[in-house]
Amino acid sequence: MIISTKKGTPKEELEKIVDRFEKQGLDVTLITGKDYNVFGLVGDTTKIDERDVLANPWIDNVTRVSAPYKRANRLFHPADSVIDCGGVKIGGKEKIAVMAGPCSIESEEQALRIAQGVKAGGATLFRGGAYKPRTSPYSFQGLETEGILDMVKAREATGMPIVSELMSEERIPEFEEYVDVVQIGARNMQNFQLLKAVGKMHKPVLLKRGLCNTIEEWIMSAEYIMAGGNEQVILCERGIRTFEKYTRNTLDLSAVPIIHEKTHLPVIVDPSHATGKANLVEPMMIAAVAAGADGLEVEVHYDPRHAWSDGAQCLTPDAFAQAMAKCRQVAWAIGRDM
Amino acid sequence: MIISTKKGTPKEELEKIVDRFEKQGLDVTLITGKDYNVFGLVGDTTKIDERDVLANPWIDNVTRVSAPYKRANRLFHPADSVIDCGGVKIGGKEKIAVMAGPCSIESEEQALRIAQGVKAGGATLFRGGAYKPRTSPYSFQGLETEGILDMVKAREATGMPIVSELMSEERIPEFEEYVDVVQIGARNMQNFQLLKAVGKMHKPVLLKRGLCNTIEEWIMSAEYIMAGGNEQVILCERGIRTFEKYTRNTLDLSAVPIIHEKTHLPVIVDPSHATGKANLVEPMMIAAVAAGADGLEVEVHYDPRHAWSDGAQCLTPDAFAQAMAKCRQVAWAIGRDM
Amino acid sequence: MIISTKKGTPKEELEKIVDRFEKQGLDVTLITGKDYNVFGLVGDTTKIDERDVLANPWIDNVTRVSAPYKRANRLFHPADSVIDCGGVKIGGKEKIAVMAGPCSIESEEQALRIAQGVKAGGATLFRGGAYKPRTSPYSFQGLETEGILDMVKAREATGMPIVSELMSEERIPEFEEYVDVVQIGARNMQNFQLLKAVGKMHKPVLLKRGLCNTIEEWIMSAEYIMAGGNEQVILCERGIRTFEKYTRNTLDLSAVPIIHEKTHLPVIVDPSHATGKANLVEPMMIAAVAAGADGLEVEVHYDPRHAWSDGAQCLTPDAFAQAMAKCRQVAWAIGRDM
Amino acid sequence: MIISTKKGTPKEELEKIVDRFEKQGLDVTLITGKDYNVFGLVGDTTKIDERDVLANPWIDNVTRVSAPYKRANRLFHPADSVIDCGGVKIGGKEKIAVMAGPCSIESEEQALRIAQGVKAGGATLFRGGAYKPRTSPYSFQGLETEGILDMVKAREATGMPIVSELMSEERIPEFEEYVDVVQIGARNMQNFQLLKAVGKMHKPVLLKRGLCNTIEEWIMSAEYIMAGGNEQVILCERGIRTFEKYTRNTLDLSAVPIIHEKTHLPVIVDPSHATGKANLVEPMMIAAVAAGADGLEVEVHYDPRHAWSDGAQCLTPDAFAQAMAKCRQVAWAIGRDM
Repeated sequence: MIISTKKGTPKEELEKIVDRFEKQGLDVTLITGKDYNVFGLVGDTTKIDERDVLANPWIDNVTRVSAPYKRANRLFHPADSVIDCGGVKIGGKEKIAVMAGPCSIESEEQALRIAQGVKAGGATLFRGGAYKPRTSPYSFQGLETEGILDMVKAREATGMPIVSELMSEERIPEFEEYVDVVQIGARNMQNFQLLKAVGKMHKPVLLKRGLCNTIEEWIMSAEYIMAGGNEQVILCERGIRTFEKYTRNTLDLSAVPIIHEKTHLPVIVDPSHATGKANLVEPMMIAAVAAGADGLEVEVHYDPRHAWSDGAQCLTPDAFAQAMAKCRQVAWAIGRDM
Repeated sequence: MIISTKKGTPKEELEKIVDRFEKQGLDVTLITGKDYNVFGLVGDTTKIDERDVLANPWIDNVTRVSAPYKRANRLFHPADSVIDCGGVKIGGKEKIAVMAGPCSIESEEQALRIAQGVKAGGATLFRGGAYKPRTSPYSFQGLETEGILDMVKAREATGMPIVSELMSEERIPEFEEYVDVVQIGARNMQNFQLLKAVGKMHKPVLLKRGLCNTIEEWIMSAEYIMAGGNEQVILCERGIRTFEKYTRNTLDLSAVPIIHEKTHLPVIVDPSHATGKANLVEPMMIAAVAAGADGLEVEVHYDPRHAWSDGAQCLTPDAFAQAMAKCRQVAWAIGRDM
Repeated sequence: MIISTKKGTPKEELEKIVDRFEKQGLDVTLITGKDYNVFGLVGDTTKIDERDVLANPWIDNVTRVSAPYKRANRLFHPADSVIDCGGVKIGGKEKIAVMAGPCSIESEEQALRIAQGVKAGGATLFRGGAYKPRTSPYSFQGLETEGILDMVKAREATGMPIVSELMSEERIPEFEEYVDVVQIGARNMQNFQLLKAVGKMHKPVLLKRGLCNTIEEWIMSAEYIMAGGNEQVILCERGIRTFEKYTRNTLDLSAVPIIHEKTHLPVIVDPSHATGKANLVEPMMIAAVAAGADGLEVEVHYDPRHAWSDGAQCLTPDAFAQAMAKCRQVAWAIGRDM
Repeated sequence: MIISTKKGTPKEELEKIVDRFEKQGLDVTLITGKDYNVFGLVGDTTKIDERDVLANPWIDNVTRVSAPYKRANRLFHPADSVIDCGGVKIGGKEKIAVMAGPCSIESEEQALRIAQGVKAGGATLFRGGAYKPRTSPYSFQGLETEGILDMVKAREATGMPIVSELMSEERIPEFEEYVDVVQIGARNMQNFQLLKAVGKMHKPVLLKRGLCNTIEEWIMSAEYIMAGGNEQVILCERGIRTFEKYTRNTLDLSAVPIIHEKTHLPVIVDPSHATGKANLVEPMMIAAVAAGADGLEVEVHYDPRHAWSDGAQCLTPDAFAQAMAKCRQVAWAIGRDM
């Protein structure tokens, strides 16, 4: 961590700063300049909040040199983490994983029919929403427990592990019992209470990036889960909010190589929520594979226009299968399997 | 709601669209153009999700004409709502309310000393954090129940109602018992589970705008709380995330007159979190009053540089009192009291 | 175009609105609802500015149904445009074009050496900056005419057409004489004076997307050039400005299929400026090819750390050749050549 | 400037870095840490581009401590600059200046009528557009020279200095002859060619902030003009582009105290373009005065719904006069005159 002080900072203030950080166990070196002074702090700075340091009005600027995360940091864990998701492995050089299914589970029959459809197209996990975060209180909020049990039936029929979003601590026993991968949605990426709670779970967590969160904040949310004891975290890029209105969000594919550089965790891509438009899903699936993603999450429904939610971004099982065939070609071209 | 269809949409598809919406109890009128067709839907469209409509590939565009919210809508409730916050009224032509206090409660003595300081400066409510949403799991997370009880002591000593942030459903009994105004933080603005839960509470809710949420989404989150039965909602603008790096967030003061136009709810402004810098707090407090805010929320600490969190944006009690004196002059100039 | 009016709009105001648009040659249909009225306008609405319509205080909302552009619109020109750039064709099913070279031309020798390097790696056009838009007036501003002449030498030696940025109308004769493709930089995307001027040129124009411009505004800037008579426009996605700080900009690859859907123009991708980091260039080159881009623009320098500008995002010729080899595999996988 | 290098940087690379910067006349101090090394550079660093430094792959991070601007910097010029605009002084403790008038000049009669209207309401300068930057090539582009001459007539009749936007170098003689304040629009804020050209003019320049430009980039564009010899620069905040759709842009009023802190230049606020909605202009005018702005720029037309451009954000002369009366009360309340 590097700290610079304003022009004219009195000598005794500089000494107080040195003293404060030495007491925290850091080595402090002072460089004296004409217009400002600079302190270099060496040691474990993860517990220091830059904003607390800036509370000293003599301090002008704080730059963090080492990352504020430890457990997720590739520096301290060079090998890729591979997460076992109910038998399907995600990360490292493993086969690119594909989670597919409807936005909302509507019935046992719908779940089963879509699960079989996506399996035929090449999906390896079945995703579906039973608890739905909706902007309006007047929109369909999900089938809840019934939806989870419908997914369990689909797993029994197809053998695919199931992925579903958890919105509340009180449903943790249910998810612990029935679900293979616990999804934390974009809007809850900084619901720290929920992050702490899933940090005590024994299931892999799929952590979606918040709509307006930086990559560093996203990794810090993974760190929350890992700090609680659950190191099975998979990150999912799903688009960020920008001024562009044509797409629902802007898919940030550069996040894929950045996550691989900064952390040892797997990262997958959700082109459905990122674009919000079915016709953009296929090209973004292919691009995500090309960018090095460890997996995809895609919304599929046999009748998108009557889907209970998010039909505009759903592929049909046929369109999904076609897109998968193209993705597979690209995966092979870059030396991966899918 | 207005829907347009693509060039070449077959007649039977147009008929299906008319049929679908008529079944939902809406009046449908069709305008036929050369390159596209337009449907006008008249009736209660709050239950229709634009994105579900777009799932029909023949549909090109959906425009919502009437707002998706009802309970918060000024159209159906023209008079300003005035919310009673433990005896202090907020909204309408009432005195401009000022919530002030530390970011984090650190001890009973600290709470008491700051409460007395801000009361002397003109604050009418005491704010303090006992449960803290922190980006890093390694940062101080708040004194929790102990902090709440310290605030209760400060209320007993000063008579000021207390405002504190709720992060989890399981703390609702504690907040119901001890706290006067329940704050929902920016990061939880779309934690729909928590919104539903506070919708069942009997305390006013201070709903902060999310860092990347539109004004409409923010009102929809108020609608969630109101739909649950709790109509005592106060909105708080606290800055949105933009590309600008000098300030922590960008304070959107135009939200104040917009909230007053669209809803009947009070709206207050938090210049501390918006700017993140103590030297910008006073000018933004004054500007917020001038823009018509019904209140302010300001962070104050007698020793900002040793505050346990967010010291960089804290005013001292003296600086707060000076800023309040200026705000009062401006309030009088625009015909309000403070 | 669809217009809705506020509740309570007097009948005579509705009639005035009908009258106004009928005088502009449009067919107007009125739908009367309980809370609002809707007008559907059918005809050529490209000359109507939504914001002018909104000046009528009785009007609540304006939605444009047909696009505001004509010449760039795929609806009126279904076939892909193929642009001849000094002999290299860009667009349609043509080979994916690759423009590579240094950010700044530094000398004849540097230009020549890099041109030969990128040609060996598979580039088909040579790019270089002679006039540089720099944030600081104290930074190197480019070799100007001398730089253009150095590029001409490189073209003579390698046979590759040359691409360079034009910043000022007064240099048009020079560019008309020496340059094969005229680049308009992101910061000048809405320098309408310059767009009109290149609309009179006889050279292909490479129009970069502005840092904060929507896709529609970007197409409208292409329309400016085309309306001037020059239909040889190639669009270039180069990242947009968001809140994310790790990358210089956020590359919006979904723009590639969107441009192909909305327009008949070719679209290429510049991963160097988008990411600002050399280690992210290769994965984003590959992803851009996978997303369907018609070409790439990449910064290359044999000694990035001594480059006179933007060294941080430069590939060496070797790294470029390696990245190209991977791109070629992906291009073949999706049925394109490169 | 502070530079940190990656873990494991070889000793000879560290020496090369020291050597490089010492050759540029800087004092270099090295701090050696366990995981990284830090260099502090002391001296004139305005000519060093952070991105060039980052081209060295051993360098991890560069932090600029002293600002990259000199002429605009308050550190080297502590007193407020006061700019004489055709007799009206802007900046320092001078009366708050108000530029008002139509978006587009439509005729001599319209110009005159509006000029008289805004003068009656308290405006001190007359603004009007003769060269219009329009998103669509099919929209009205301004009366050009004729518009400028209409404004000259309005100046003769009212005595108010005139402000108009310059879009092209070739019109500089015309502006030098007729116009009192040369406006550079938001879309040209980084048209460096134009900035250099107005840097040679002898008229005050009103530099609008770009839609997606940081405050630092905005000051750097002022620095371009000042570096050319023209130190008469006034900055104008006019809203930035964000995800919020209800307003045209998001007005960033915190820019006012920041500009006053960082520079000695005057800063004014344009609430018309910032909000895009007439009903938001008055509250934002008042808030801007309260925030400490040195002036306002406001669009006024006697018949907004027939204005040739931007009618939606125009005040009538009466509404303008009413808003001015409120602003004046607030100006007095904060100890300014208007």
